[in-house]
Amino acid sequence: MKGVVHMRFEVFGESHGPEIGAVLCNFPAGIAVDFDFIASELARRAGGNSELTTPRRESDNFRIISGVFNDVTTGAPICVIIPNESAHSGDYEETKNKMRPNHADYPAFVKFGGHSDYRGGGHFSGRLTAPITAIGAIAKTFLQTRGIAISSAVLSPSEDEILRAKADGDSIGGCVEVTANGVPAGTGGIDTDSLDGVLAKLFFSIPAVKAVEFGAGVNFANARGSAVNDQFCVSGGQVRTTTNNCGGIIGGITSGMPIVARLTFKPTPSISKPQHTVSMPDMRETTIEIRGRHDPCIVPRAAVVAEAMLALGLGGALS
Amino acid sequence: MKGVVHMRFEVFGESHGPEIGAVLCNFPAGIAVDFDFIASELARRAGGNSELTTPRRESDNFRIISGVFNDVTTGAPICVIIPNESAHSGDYEETKNKMRPNHADYPAFVKFGGHSDYRGGGHFSGRLTAPITAIGAIAKTFLQTRGIAISSAVLSPSEDEILRAKADGDSIGGCVEVTANGVPAGTGGIDTDSLDGVLAKLFFSIPAVKAVEFGAGVNFANARGSAVNDQFCVSGGQVRTTTNNCGGIIGGITSGMPIVARLTFKPTPSISKPQHTVSMPDMRETTIEIRGRHDPCIVPRAAVVAEAMLALGLGGALS
Amino acid sequence: MKGVVHMRFEVFGESHGPEIGAVLCNFPAGIAVDFDFIASELARRAGGNSELTTPRRESDNFRIISGVFNDVTTGAPICVIIPNESAHSGDYEETKNKMRPNHADYPAFVKFGGHSDYRGGGHFSGRLTAPITAIGAIAKTFLQTRGIAISSAVLSPSEDEILRAKADGDSIGGCVEVTANGVPAGTGGIDTDSLDGVLAKLFFSIPAVKAVEFGAGVNFANARGSAVNDQFCVSGGQVRTTTNNCGGIIGGITSGMPIVARLTFKPTPSISKPQHTVSMPDMRETTIEIRGRHDPCIVPRAAVVAEAMLALGLGGALS
Amino acid sequence: MKGVVHMRFEVFGESHGPEIGAVLCNFPAGIAVDFDFIASELARRAGGNSELTTPRRESDNFRIISGVFNDVTTGAPICVIIPNESAHSGDYEETKNKMRPNHADYPAFVKFGGHSDYRGGGHFSGRLTAPITAIGAIAKTFLQTRGIAISSAVLSPSEDEILRAKADGDSIGGCVEVTANGVPAGTGGIDTDSLDGVLAKLFFSIPAVKAVEFGAGVNFANARGSAVNDQFCVSGGQVRTTTNNCGGIIGGITSGMPIVARLTFKPTPSISKPQHTVSMPDMRETTIEIRGRHDPCIVPRAAVVAEAMLALGLGGALS
Repeated sequence: MKGVVHMRFEVFGESHGPEIGAVLCNFPAGIAVDFDFIASELARRAGGNSELTTPRRESDNFRIISGVFNDVTTGAPICVIIPNESAHSGDYEETKNKMRPNHADYPAFVKFGGHSDYRGGGHFSGRLTAPITAIGAIAKTFLQTRGIAISSAVLSPSEDEILRAKADGDSIGGCVEVTANGVPAGTGGIDTDSLDGVLAKLFFSIPAVKAVEFGAGVNFANARGSAVNDQFCVSGGQVRTTTNNCGGIIGGITSGMPIVARLTFKPTPSISKPQHTVSMPDMRETTIEIRGRHDPCIVPRAAVVAEAMLALGLGGALS
Repeated sequence: MKGVVHMRFEVFGESHGPEIGAVLCNFPAGIAVDFDFIASELARRAGGNSELTTPRRESDNFRIISGVFNDVTTGAPICVIIPNESAHSGDYEETKNKMRPNHADYPAFVKFGGHSDYRGGGHFSGRLTAPITAIGAIAKTFLQTRGIAISSAVLSPSEDEILRAKADGDSIGGCVEVTANGVPAGTGGIDTDSLDGVLAKLFFSIPAVKAVEFGAGVNFANARGSAVNDQFCVSGGQVRTTTNNCGGIIGGITSGMPIVARLTFKPTPSISKPQHTVSMPDMRETTIEIRGRHDPCIVPRAAVVAEAMLALGLGGALS
Repeated sequence: MKGVVHMRFEVFGESHGPEIGAVLCNFPAGIAVDFDFIASELARRAGGNSELTTPRRESDNFRIISGVFNDVTTGAPICVIIPNESAHSGDYEETKNKMRPNHADYPAFVKFGGHSDYRGGGHFSGRLTAPITAIGAIAKTFLQTRGIAISSAVLSPSEDEILRAKADGDSIGGCVEVTANGVPAGTGGIDTDSLDGVLAKLFFSIPAVKAVEFGAGVNFANARGSAVNDQFCVSGGQVRTTTNNCGGIIGGITSGMPIVARLTFKPTPSISKPQHTVSMPDMRETTIEIRGRHDPCIVPRAAVVAEAMLALGLGGALS
Repeated sequence: MKGVVHMRFEVFGESHGPEIGAVLCNFPAGIAVDFDFIASELARRAGGNSELTTPRRESDNFRIISGVFNDVTTGAPICVIIPNESAHSGDYEETKNKMRPNHADYPAFVKFGGHSDYRGGGHFSGRLTAPITAIGAIAKTFLQTRGIAISSAVLSPSEDEILRAKADGDSIGGCVEVTANGVPAGTGGIDTDSLDGVLAKLFFSIPAVKAVEFGAGVNFANARGSAVNDQFCVSGGQVRTTTNNCGGIIGGITSGMPIVARLTFKPTPSISKPQHTVSMPDMRETTIEIRGRHDPCIVPRAAVVAEAMLALGLGGALS
């Protein structure tokens, strides 16, 4: 038996389909929707803005077709639709049977019996993070009404490293830190409802994420308790900790300190260098050279997506 | 709308309650239950076995009260009950209002309005990993019938480092790597059903886990695509990759390579050194000295728990 | 902990919004999509076809924007979009503060703080059953590949009774029986995963459904066990029952006999006769006369929706 | 993506196992547990109290082993354990391969490959409603703190009809009406989260329930809108309806009127008359005579179970 109402979402669409989108269910009613803010968040995610990113230009002219009336959420499912543009599907015909290394091509081929839309990664494309960004923007607005602010920082790589990878026809991974300030203590759940677990599940659904850390994360491995225990104090009439090594979550529940998570992204799998691979379904070894327009590093664009997931996860925990 | 049948579990009990346990639902019927194997897995988790662990002796005389008939699973919910013994509840009376740093005391106090059982961490105790270990052992047996083997390795700390921390009245964190060999390609899901996300959600429900990585994990942050892309080959009539930086999961779906995950644990929060903290509900700053018997490092005992969670997660994905 | 992959769907849109739709997730890959069949199912549901139904003409020019490639399902979420046409929003301005009896207006007003789209019932409109019908048609095609056929019969009211209600400016309720032939024995679940419960949950999400029965249903209340026990026999090499009072489900699991369910619909709430009601938020008693175009009886149109829900529920149980 | 915390429960155990029980998760903290009330609810459900019920005496000495501390709920999972007594397992050996008509024997045999515990219905036994009754009693106490009262009435059969069925070695079905007074308007959800659907899913998980109606239920089939529309008024400063044909739920959301549901139970399948059936796995036609102690009618005992499910469903919707 499960409770009646919980916030949830689904994303749909393919890189080279006509439209992509997301539906956000059980979102609170009465939240003013800021269309300019959604557009600005989509612009943060969109490519084509600098030499750091793919030349593929995504204008992301989103429309909200449900769940919003007179610019305010109604409580009914919110569906955001974004048309696809600028699709060069021909780029993918030549290599459609070749499994691109580190892409989902091969696992998806096995799982779905070769029925996936192979053009540009299909449903596995990073393109699908656009509607997540859009509904994440709506979730951020809800959180703001609760005094919660989401932010992020790209910890690595540097702009220099990205440009060097690009010059080499290569790609590079990186790390994003996301923070939620203002989350009240006592938010979250226990056991498999632990908030860190719920957030991690969402973070790992972002393409290319391979590690999720909270607070000191992997650095706890060599740490002494006496050095990293967050000791409590009272400050400004509130219980706080003098450090925040736990990243705002202890035992699956928030402590009232900022939630701090780090997401590590693997390098963009698509590189212009030749790579060994196999073709399917004939299982023949071959070589692949991936053409088309690709980011040398998705991390700068992914920061807003990580923020969106944090906002959606917290929105679910607080609504 | 959600599908009818999915494997799931709940854990229940408190550190100083009469009994703890777990119920495992929608587990496949017809799996022979190996009681000796469950006992040996519980022994791996139990303390009191060496100078590395807590002197608290847990004999873990489990009983299975449902879902097993003539030593074979029936398909009905499997309930494992483990009696608690050796409880020194008095150890906790003195400090019951003092929030122990890095324990769930304070977040739980806020969430549950001070109603939690404070003795030994109550439901948040690592003690609750015993029933998880027991049902994980049953899940491992199911996976074995599918040709899947689960193993683990403690990557850090060394035995020496643990003993040094103990000598200092301190504690130390660490890292466990868990591996699943033999998982067929094409297992898992997409979007928020991604297998890495599902597993991470379970891993983060283990007390003290603060980071979850798959494959190269955090090391992807500084890596070039050309260096870390797992290139495909055909070996023994099967599609394989020559490296396994993705840790067996790409796009949320298994690749047929071993699933490799790393879990970082924070140091045992309970240390004998005095720490600053607050008492609740009066919000007064104070000092706490935690007595009682505590592990200087839970990582050696936690390895089998991490294996159990991997087994339960994969069991759910494959059943 | 819950399993990774389960079929599920969401519907979105409002009666007078630009578009409505549904997204169907974790649907099996490799199923050929029959666009003509979807259109014919939508035509069964659409009004304007006879004097029995609303003069509002719905052409239902659906499009599938994701999850289908080369007319075959890919395994990715399937999103169906249907544009709204023929909206006379002005019909609703006059009565927008008046809570229409037996409509969701008042409960929704309280739940959503008056933010709902009031035009034509908004998200609560029977219009939303169009995308359910569309994805139900896709689910039926999947079931056909498993040898399962879904059908329905309107048990009441007769065409005469509908016409008499219409002539009186009134409306009338009715009952639909849905049947699934060919469902293999052993499908379903136990406890809260019982298949009858899962199906009932879906059936009650159809607007106006107020009773769900399986097999002999309410007639069991006065029946003797000796009269209604379905006795087993062997027929054609298969275990069958000589009667099917249980409607194909016993203990939450299918028996191999046809699944038979009956859904009772309340009369269309919108009638042209004056009714007592209140206005909100001022809580003033008043009178309402509902204009606009309304079905005297939705039951003939609802039969295909009931079939769709049965197909979606069984699809989830079998995939 | 789903929200973090929702009330849910699992039941476990078999009719002839050592113990049965239930675990109730995410139940609110701070609710005083009334052990006498739980016992009195279990007594309502227990047999052996009159000539109307089975001579099997169930004393139901329950114990709560978790989630309650100092007689108050803690917010951690609440596990109730009830020992089994008075088991005459030998009664079932003779007929263990014979599929009892209208019991779950055959569907379960197919689903679980013949591994079910066949003694007394195993996990499918009505015995499992005892722990549901116990956690339902706890849920009722929570609802009382919100001003909600649950009650029930046996609509049929009469005591006379039960005694006549018993005299004939037969059994008889019946109908229970359950009511929840005091549920605030605006409770519930939309689409597949509709409260009537959520409640129906729980009701159908009670063994033998074959129909669930809300308000006028099946009587809507022949009703005119003008006759059954619940017209609104203002009474005592609150919006009410002058009738309650909708049974307190419209569009999946509560109206503030009492929730009224009716559950129809099929007759106890176990009758002493000889019945045709098949044996498994050999699929041979045969005859079965069911001995042992059985209720001629479970309906009087089932009323409290129906109340418990209503309480659990509403508890989930309100917590």
